[in-house]
Amino acid sequence: MKVAIVMGSDSDFPVVEKTVTILKKFGIDLEVRVLSAHRTPHQALAFSENAEKNGFDVIIAAAGKAAHLPGVLAAVTILPVIGLPIKSSTLDGMDSLFSIVQMPTGIPVATVAINGAENAALLAIHIMALKYDVLKDKLREYRKQMAAEVEAKDKALKY
Amino acid sequence: MKVAIVMGSDSDFPVVEKTVTILKKFGIDLEVRVLSAHRTPHQALAFSENAEKNGFDVIIAAAGKAAHLPGVLAAVTILPVIGLPIKSSTLDGMDSLFSIVQMPTGIPVATVAINGAENAALLAIHIMALKYDVLKDKLREYRKQMAAEVEAKDKALKY
Amino acid sequence: MKVAIVMGSDSDFPVVEKTVTILKKFGIDLEVRVLSAHRTPHQALAFSENAEKNGFDVIIAAAGKAAHLPGVLAAVTILPVIGLPIKSSTLDGMDSLFSIVQMPTGIPVATVAINGAENAALLAIHIMALKYDVLKDKLREYRKQMAAEVEAKDKALKY
Amino acid sequence: MKVAIVMGSDSDFPVVEKTVTILKKFGIDLEVRVLSAHRTPHQALAFSENAEKNGFDVIIAAAGKAAHLPGVLAAVTILPVIGLPIKSSTLDGMDSLFSIVQMPTGIPVATVAINGAENAALLAIHIMALKYDVLKDKLREYRKQMAAEVEAKDKALKY
Amino acid sequence: MKVAIVMGSDSDFPVVEKTVTILKKFGIDLEVRVLSAHRTPHQALAFSENAEKNGFDVIIAAAGKAAHLPGVLAAVTILPVIGLPIKSSTLDGMDSLFSIVQMPTGIPVATVAINGAENAALLAIHIMALKYDVLKDKLREYRKQMAAEVEAKDKALKY
Amino acid sequence: MKVAIVMGSDSDFPVVEKTVTILKKFGIDLEVRVLSAHRTPHQALAFSENAEKNGFDVIIAAAGKAAHLPGVLAAVTILPVIGLPIKSSTLDGMDSLFSIVQMPTGIPVATVAINGAENAALLAIHIMALKYDVLKDKLREYRKQMAAEVEAKDKALKY
Amino acid sequence: MKVAIVMGSDSDFPVVEKTVTILKKFGIDLEVRVLSAHRTPHQALAFSENAEKNGFDVIIAAAGKAAHLPGVLAAVTILPVIGLPIKSSTLDGMDSLFSIVQMPTGIPVATVAINGAENAALLAIHIMALKYDVLKDKLREYRKQMAAEVEAKDKALKY
Amino acid sequence: MKVAIVMGSDSDFPVVEKTVTILKKFGIDLEVRVLSAHRTPHQALAFSENAEKNGFDVIIAAAGKAAHLPGVLAAVTILPVIGLPIKSSTLDGMDSLFSIVQMPTGIPVATVAINGAENAALLAIHIMALKYDVLKDKLREYRKQMAAEVEAKDKALKY
Repeated sequence: MKVAIVMGSDSDFPVVEKTVTILKKFGIDLEVRVLSAHRTPHQALAFSENAEKNGFDVIIAAAGKAAHLPGVLAAVTILPVIGLPIKSSTLDGMDSLFSIVQMPTGIPVATVAINGAENAALLAIHIMALKYDVLKDKLREYRKQMAAEVEAKDKALKY
Repeated sequence: MKVAIVMGSDSDFPVVEKTVTILKKFGIDLEVRVLSAHRTPHQALAFSENAEKNGFDVIIAAAGKAAHLPGVLAAVTILPVIGLPIKSSTLDGMDSLFSIVQMPTGIPVATVAINGAENAALLAIHIMALKYDVLKDKLREYRKQMAAEVEAKDKALKY
Repeated sequence: MKVAIVMGSDSDFPVVEKTVTILKKFGIDLEVRVLSAHRTPHQALAFSENAEKNGFDVIIAAAGKAAHLPGVLAAVTILPVIGLPIKSSTLDGMDSLFSIVQMPTGIPVATVAINGAENAALLAIHIMALKYDVLKDKLREYRKQMAAEVEAKDKALKY
Repeated sequence: MKVAIVMGSDSDFPVVEKTVTILKKFGIDLEVRVLSAHRTPHQALAFSENAEKNGFDVIIAAAGKAAHLPGVLAAVTILPVIGLPIKSSTLDGMDSLFSIVQMPTGIPVATVAINGAENAALLAIHIMALKYDVLKDKLREYRKQMAAEVEAKDKALKY
Repeated sequence: MKVAIVMGSDSDFPVVEKTVTILKKFGIDLEVRVLSAHRTPHQALAFSENAEKNGFDVIIAAAGKAAHLPGVLAAVTILPVIGLPIKSSTLDGMDSLFSIVQMPTGIPVATVAINGAENAALLAIHIMALKYDVLKDKLREYRKQMAAEVEAKDKALKY
Repeated sequence: MKVAIVMGSDSDFPVVEKTVTILKKFGIDLEVRVLSAHRTPHQALAFSENAEKNGFDVIIAAAGKAAHLPGVLAAVTILPVIGLPIKSSTLDGMDSLFSIVQMPTGIPVATVAINGAENAALLAIHIMALKYDVLKDKLREYRKQMAAEVEAKDKALKY
Repeated sequence: MKVAIVMGSDSDFPVVEKTVTILKKFGIDLEVRVLSAHRTPHQALAFSENAEKNGFDVIIAAAGKAAHLPGVLAAVTILPVIGLPIKSSTLDGMDSLFSIVQMPTGIPVATVAINGAENAALLAIHIMALKYDVLKDKLREYRKQMAAEVEAKDKALKY
Repeated sequence: MKVAIVMGSDSDFPVVEKTVTILKKFGIDLEVRVLSAHRTPHQALAFSENAEKNGFDVIIAAAGKAAHLPGVLAAVTILPVIGLPIKSSTLDGMDSLFSIVQMPTGIPVATVAINGAENAALLAIHIMALKYDVLKDKLREYRKQMAAEVEAKDKALKY
């Protein structure tokens, strides 16, 4: 079970860090890379082209503004690619979202919410659970905990 | 290899039909259902809760406007859920997209483009290919054909 | 006269607190709950399904991002459901608003402004005033005070 | 049980007609008026100020563009006012929606979807059901039929 | 030469203050009022209906969110009404702008930029200059000073 | 009483024609010009610079897309300039609106609704009525007729 | 003088054809290619990497939806790349525009209007005119003709 | 090799400064000017009309809100004009972007990202490299350094 997390810029790491945390919590091997669709396009492509044979199951690609990275990686691998739109200083994340989710027919990118770093990790885990049964139980457990936390907050309310 | 396609309304079928076509082309078993998060909520939940044990690998949920269906289904299954935002008569699909992609932390929905019906199918196939090796080759073949078609169109241009 | 206030997350409470204040000012009984359409879907549904027989007159549901809670609650009760879109850290509240107000035909949600916590309470009171005459006079009084405050501010201006 | 439907312009009637149909189906008395917040402001105000004593339970106000009518009516009555944003030829209904839903603190308008004419009627009925028990059973029946229709469409699908 | 400045809320004054400053600089008489289209509708209407006979030449109306005030005032006076959209805490001023500028046929509102307080004043002065020749020279002088300031800044640049 | 109507392109005329109709109905002299801020900038500037001495009272400028014409004309005249945003084939008029209404401090443009051709004319008339008393009565009469039309439509409704 | 026009899909050709027309009118050599950033990424990269040595002066890249093509080409050439956003069936071209114009620091794309096919050609010509003096005179002539056409339309107006 | 940088207001300089830095790094002569399309229109036009004979190769024009400056300058020169949209206090830069990029047919503006100051400089350099061979090597070197920086950051990551 191994996930690649690729960021277009290391300035995205404060968001992406939450992806790392969730994956580690589930015991997933991971590699975090800074690879730019525009500044290091060949390295980005090479990484994605070799991802399958390098043992990755899923690629998570985080990028902001004209966020081409997820689509560019998806174009050269048959691994599922999850796109994580990063909010930058203008347009409130709408540019990142549209650049990632509106992929033309043929090359899908599984897009999560703007800055939805935890959900990028969880989506990878739901996907890998198809193949790795151990993750199924962990996901069921995670959901129970999540529900328990909501219930605890519900009970803690004084109204 | 079995995919559930759930629509919030049968008026979404002209879009969803392209999802069916792609899945069949790849030899994937599928079931298409009309289940509404709002009009038949219990049936929708029951379907999703039982999807795993009923042998589904992935759920594709198509919905328009305040498109709650993908999120509602995702909340009660650990199968990967793909959200397909349908453009309706107002707001140009932006309401469907935001309602599907902006899921809060904990329950991810793998969102594709507005009316991106083919990509919903392809994303399901990329995901299932993690588990079913046969799909890997089919995907590689599909991509080759897709590239060949682009190349043919490129050559056909008279400029 | 009893109102249920349901939040998707306790992080919404700083906004929702103003709803509580207004309802208390009008002497309305209330219960505040944290129930998530996605993290505790069964509890959310059960709450809404039992709301009528538990003596609630109106449900106010506050949620942000892909805000499914109001629609999900409305789907299983015939009580009027008021949707309060919460602004989160991206998209300036537009995602919450569209996810709540753009409900498909059949299940309406009475939507108020983004972060319009006071108006969620007031709308509940206007609705309940149909049934409870005592609220009519209180509303007339409230409006008089509101007008008086505007008039006082108008007079206080030195231009 | 009586509902006022007020339109800002008779060009809104093709949308509003669906509101009429639903209300009639539920046996609700209704009056449809063309009253403009801008072209006949005094008549609009007078209508709303007298709506309560003229026996109306709810006002539904439909308007497009800079849609002030629902807010203007709500300002002078304590009856619940439902705002129905009408899509016009520019901005895809976003102007109507924002002008109706973003009401400032103090005067709420219960907003439904852009062109959500049926839901405007249904919301009125949910609200009136607080007071008129007969509507409760009708709503339960309506929901059953709605669910049955979805189920029939679900069964009719050949996939 | 007299201008009425009407705000929907005294919280708009920090923006509106710049309107006052410009008008005073041009020696225009002015009256600033807090009158709400929703909280004090009758006072707002009465003010606008009497504005012409009370000697006002132009009305400037500032409001945020579902900003109905300019349109409501314009409906009952034949004086030119200038709408000043105020940015509030959500939607970045887009709601205020659309609610003011998208007036339906028949009742125009002369709209300036979001938070464009100085331009609201200047537009009033350009309009009044049609009637009061003294303002023509003042405007020419103002524009000269404005150009001179830009030129000074241009010269002050060290590149 | 003379109004200049300037269009950026003759393709705007189907919209602008309604401006002409209203102005003629009020007996206003007018001149319609095709002058482009980008294709004939010097002619556009020269026209605006001479507009005052050529007897114009108001300039109405209609333009679409990156609609610079109203602002460019306003920069070189002290006559009031009314901006009429024209909806073109993309972005639903939002680009035209923002390009016209968001003028920076110093040079205001009185903006009306997207494609709000009649209101551009009416705003010009309200402005000129400050100076020409005859227009006051005509405006009052126009409003009466407008109200009468609404009332007639109200009565004609069969509900 | 040679320009490459690259489209992501041959469905973009009806728009791109206008680019061809303008370039031919100016006597520019051109090559039109269908190369997809996603479906034929290696061909697209190879084309761009060799564009300089193959004698191209400028690349024009047209694409819709998540329009990555212009940025992807720009990443591997130092030739100026002009991005032409194509309006597709949803979001009114906003997705294409944001995906092209919002390029991160380091790799610029010279973006023109949505569907601004003629301007893509003209921008290429303005750029090449830096190097090829013959184009300067042609551009001056073109502008004269353009102005003359506007003037002719201006004169043809009967108002 | 000489570039003109023109700002609509000196408040844009904190953004524009990064344009200066990049150009200097490449050894490009430059002149920075404050020239307003609205406040000093004649100076702006004169500057642009003389830019070619004053030895400039490219004009970079930065402006916010209804950002007419780039289009106005482009209208009177055949030099390539690069538009740099500046984010101001409302609408998150969308008004500036639309006002600059959506230029009508005939007068193109090469638009870069909102606040994309570095890319405005780089685009100018890519354009000038057509003519000045020395810039080609510098651009290749710059890209190498940029790639090296990304690679260094990639290596520095501890995951």
